[in-house]
Amino acid sequence: MTRSSFADVDCGVAQAVEQLGDKWTVVILRSAFHGIRRFDEFSEHLGIAAKVLADRLAKLVDAGILYKQKVEDDGRAVEYKLTQKGLDTYPMIIFLNDWAERWLGNSKGPRIEVVERKTGRPIRPVHVLAENGKVLSAYDTFMRNGPSGSEVLNRSQRIVARRRGNDLR
Amino acid sequence: MTRSSFADVDCGVAQAVEQLGDKWTVVILRSAFHGIRRFDEFSEHLGIAAKVLADRLAKLVDAGILYKQKVEDDGRAVEYKLTQKGLDTYPMIIFLNDWAERWLGNSKGPRIEVVERKTGRPIRPVHVLAENGKVLSAYDTFMRNGPSGSEVLNRSQRIVARRRGNDLR
Repeated sequence: MTRSSFADVDCGVAQAVEQLGDKWTVVILRSAFHGIRRFDEFSEHLGIAAKVLADRLAKLVDAGILYKQKVEDDGRAVEYKLTQKGLDTYPMIIFLNDWAERWLGNSKGPRIEVVERKTGRPIRPVHVLAENGKVLSAYDTFMRNGPSGSEVLNRSQRIVARRRGNDLR
Repeated sequence: MTRSSFADVDCGVAQAVEQLGDKWTVVILRSAFHGIRRFDEFSEHLGIAAKVLADRLAKLVDAGILYKQKVEDDGRAVEYKLTQKGLDTYPMIIFLNDWAERWLGNSKGPRIEVVERKTGRPIRPVHVLAENGKVLSAYDTFMRNGPSGSEVLNRSQRIVARRRGNDLR
C-alpha cells in the first residue's frame, strides 16, 4: 500500500512535509522571504510554468502558509504574503542554505549572507541545540514518546529492536 | 520555460531541495534517524511502494546522504546508513517536527520529545539565532551577497525594487 497523503500519519515530520515537502513549494517560500509577492514576480524569479505556480500558490494559501491580499488602489493586483505560519518556516530556509553551502558550495564562499538587521552581523548557522546552547549531533540525542505519543516512533523502535535481537543470534 | 532540475540554479536553497525536497525522501531520512537501516525495514515502517523506495534510496546514495554497507556474517543483508552529509540534515528533521507540533499538532502536546542523551533534558526548538544567541524572525534579518554572490538574490532585489518604484507612482 502506498500513501498519497501524509496528512493523517501520526508523525510531525510526515505532516510537515505534506505541506512543505515539494521542490517548487520550498523555492516559492525562499522567493517570498526575498520579498517576492505577485504572481508575475514569482513567475519571473523562478522560471516556473504558470500552471505549476498557480497550483503551488493555491496549496500554500489553503495550508495557511501564504495569504492573498488585494493591493490598495490597484483593483486587479493581488499579493501573496507569508502568514505567521509561513514566516515560521524561516529556519528551514536558512538551514537549507547553510547545508547547501557546506555540502554543495563552491570554494569562493557562500553566495548569500544573512545578517541581523540591527547589528549588521551574520546570523548563526541553524543547529540542533541542547538546553544549555551546546551544538548537538543526532548521536547526542534520542527520541521518546511525548504527551500524545507517536505510533510511528513505537513502530520504528520495534523494528530496530527486532533487528538487534536478530544480530545477537 | 520550466526547469526539471535545480542542481544548476545559483542558489543554495534550490540546490538543497534538489536533493532533499521530496516528501518520501524526507520521511526516509526521518526513519533513518529513528534507526531504520534495511530495505525491508523502511518498507515496513513507511508503507511505501518498493519501486518508490528503491528510487529514493538510490538517489540518496548518489547524493552521498546515505551509504550502503554489507552486514558482516550475512552475505545478502545491506544497510543504508547516514553519511556525515546525511547526519547533517538533522536540524531540518527537528525543525519540521517542531513546526508541525506548533501548527498542526493536537492539544495533548507533542507526539515525540527529543532529549539530550547525556542529560535527559529536552533539546531547544530549532530557531534562527543572532550571533549573540537571540531568536530572530525573518523581519529581523536581511540577505546580501556573500563572497561568491547570488544571481538569484540580485534578480529578486531587482524585482522588488521595481515593484516599490511602481508603488510610488
